[in-house]
Amino acid sequence: MSFTEFPSRLLEDAVNEFASLPGIGRKTAFRLVMTLLRRDPEEVRRFGESILKLHEGIHYCSICNNISDTDICSICSDEKRDSSVICVVENIQDVMAVENTRQFRGVYHVLGGIISPIDGIGPSDLRIDSLEGKLRAGGIKELILALSATMEGDTTNYYLYRKLCNYSILITTLARGVAIGDELEYTDEITLGRALTNRNPYQQ
Amino acid sequence: MSFTEFPSRLLEDAVNEFASLPGIGRKTAFRLVMTLLRRDPEEVRRFGESILKLHEGIHYCSICNNISDTDICSICSDEKRDSSVICVVENIQDVMAVENTRQFRGVYHVLGGIISPIDGIGPSDLRIDSLEGKLRAGGIKELILALSATMEGDTTNYYLYRKLCNYSILITTLARGVAIGDELEYTDEITLGRALTNRNPYQQ
Repeated sequence: MSFTEFPSRLLEDAVNEFASLPGIGRKTAFRLVMTLLRRDPEEVRRFGESILKLHEGIHYCSICNNISDTDICSICSDEKRDSSVICVVENIQDVMAVENTRQFRGVYHVLGGIISPIDGIGPSDLRIDSLEGKLRAGGIKELILALSATMEGDTTNYYLYRKLCNYSILITTLARGVAIGDELEYTDEITLGRALTNRNPYQQ
Repeated sequence: MSFTEFPSRLLEDAVNEFASLPGIGRKTAFRLVMTLLRRDPEEVRRFGESILKLHEGIHYCSICNNISDTDICSICSDEKRDSSVICVVENIQDVMAVENTRQFRGVYHVLGGIISPIDGIGPSDLRIDSLEGKLRAGGIKELILALSATMEGDTTNYYLYRKLCNYSILITTLARGVAIGDELEYTDEITLGRALTNRNPYQQ
């Protein structure tokens, strides 16, 4: 079934909006809109309003730039967290990923991206100045560079290290090694090589 | 990444709404919402409003029950169409499918479903009374039963035929046969058997 003509412009508009999302084609978009139409009107209203509220109500933390309902996010405003340890991440998803480990009690700094010449993203597009400002203001002991283990992540790590190594703070990066559950036979040689080089004393 | 904690309730609400749609899991929902967040706020507003308008503005044609922006749909209000030929379809998608063939110049009657005991849908759940009302009112020459070639479609066809055969109108169904482009070798035996039984004189 192609969609040469829609019986309703409102229907067509909604289908076009859904089809503009990544990974959703026009057929799927149409199916989703039909699902909404079959639902209770109250539920459809709630769906639409959740998107409008997202548009109107969402804040970005003025300290770490994490997504938030308030001007300062719940992590930065939590007095139990150690604000002298800053975990530098690419985006909000990565904040959530680190939070889910429940291993980190410091605070974050969301860069808003990663250096990627192929996508035209350079250091000036990232929130590096405000990170440097935090270091200049003092009180920071450690900066954890928690970026992806990709070419872009490594480039950004290197850039940040060169730019910030003159401040007297500890700069660390995430350990690279064999992922938990991985079999050695299927681990790529770069990862395995790195895991060998960075080998640790055996701990019981 | 699991989603034990969201940094924002608005974000969580929007993810939950997307995840309530069929075929969209929580990870996909999160990805879609993040896409919206990265967009221009104006676009996000338009997305949300397209859903709200769907909820508030959509009509169902009071004659054929097709979806419409007005009380009577563009097909029923088109004087060039032959209102003495009614094509009975299951739903709005099927109206669009038949319209896309550009082979039909009559009008429609949307049943709003199909008899399916397994889903608990009986004749009383469908718009059969209003269809009978149209026949009783007169002026109808032909009723085309354009339902799916499934067990449920055949059951509904049979039910409608038994209920409506006393009115002096022609009742037809869609031709069953080998689909265009299908190879005989891979055509199932029921379809092939039906195509043989219903064979037509060769037309040049």
